[in-house]
Amino acid sequence: MASPSLTDTLETIWQLLGRGVADRRHGFHWPVVCTLHDGQAHGRVVVFRGTERASRRLWFHTDARSAKLDQLEGLSWVFYDPGAKRQLRVSGPTARADDALADDQWARLPLTSRKTYLVSPGPGTSLGDTWDSGLPAALGTDPPSREASEAGRANFAVVVTEAVRIESLHLARRGHERAVFDWDGAWHGEWRVP
Amino acid sequence: MASPSLTDTLETIWQLLGRGVADRRHGFHWPVVCTLHDGQAHGRVVVFRGTERASRRLWFHTDARSAKLDQLEGLSWVFYDPGAKRQLRVSGPTARADDALADDQWARLPLTSRKTYLVSPGPGTSLGDTWDSGLPAALGTDPPSREASEAGRANFAVVVTEAVRIESLHLARRGHERAVFDWDGAWHGEWRVP
Repeated sequence: MASPSLTDTLETIWQLLGRGVADRRHGFHWPVVCTLHDGQAHGRVVVFRGTERASRRLWFHTDARSAKLDQLEGLSWVFYDPGAKRQLRVSGPTARADDALADDQWARLPLTSRKTYLVSPGPGTSLGDTWDSGLPAALGTDPPSREASEAGRANFAVVVTEAVRIESLHLARRGHERAVFDWDGAWHGEWRVP
Repeated sequence: MASPSLTDTLETIWQLLGRGVADRRHGFHWPVVCTLHDGQAHGRVVVFRGTERASRRLWFHTDARSAKLDQLEGLSWVFYDPGAKRQLRVSGPTARADDALADDQWARLPLTSRKTYLVSPGPGTSLGDTWDSGLPAALGTDPPSREASEAGRANFAVVVTEAVRIESLHLARRGHERAVFDWDGAWHGEWRVP
């Protein structure tokens, strides 16, 4: 049986990332993003909104009032799909996207997703003993109108990582495959003991 | 419609955690554990191996040679199940378990899982261009004998978090529910804007 190849592995990684964006049922559609704050590691599931292989970029959406926008240094992504039996860990410089990308992403966002950005006050604000959805009462469980949804644009942010390290772990029957790829103008990969 | 209750939410959380340990098909069986190292956040999927509500403990298994054993301070867990539409974030003091728990966990471990701890050199060691499973060649794709598996015990560690904070986000149709629970001898919960 031929040994697995680093080149093929990197190809598979980018294919799986592309599929993760497009396919809501793929595990890669729901990565965990880990950040640092006050000596504590924090993680949360995000929706994987986009990737572009040529620029090595990956991005997710978040509320502009969210604390994690001030905690982007040292951020990393973890993807896992039980069917593909593969975990990816991706890290690199991470920043809030400029308006060009954010406007483009906002324009594509369905009204049900835009609704999230209409909560007030901002996400995480304490409500004590009294539950509230944070949304305008008039909305109920309906999506907002397109016009009403525009109030959410000010609360909408896109966070972009430019990948410089990708670690892949594939749980294969013939033996697990663990590879690390580092970027310095080109990708350099090596195998690691799984 | 009645408002959701913090007491019920905490009850649901512990039920879901129990189910996550027992049910391999539940999303909570595969949490991400986030750690800190060198100014970088690191995450990886682990198998959720056990929880005990009375002591608020949760644990996973890892290789004793793994770098993350020296990076347990500030560790946190992220659980997500798409079916239950719930995310949990759990944090608290985390340490390597004593031999009593580790011996008990090792005794229950199937041979196919014990096999993982037979890799040599330790996980993460660079292999350059040449892939290798890290396992003794004689094993092939078979599980080890019970006797042979015992060599893995020295490489086996259990990591235990004593939860002092649990954050729950439930994506409910009538409005998302976000609750935070802190422990100071009893659990105190409050709602947050989702």
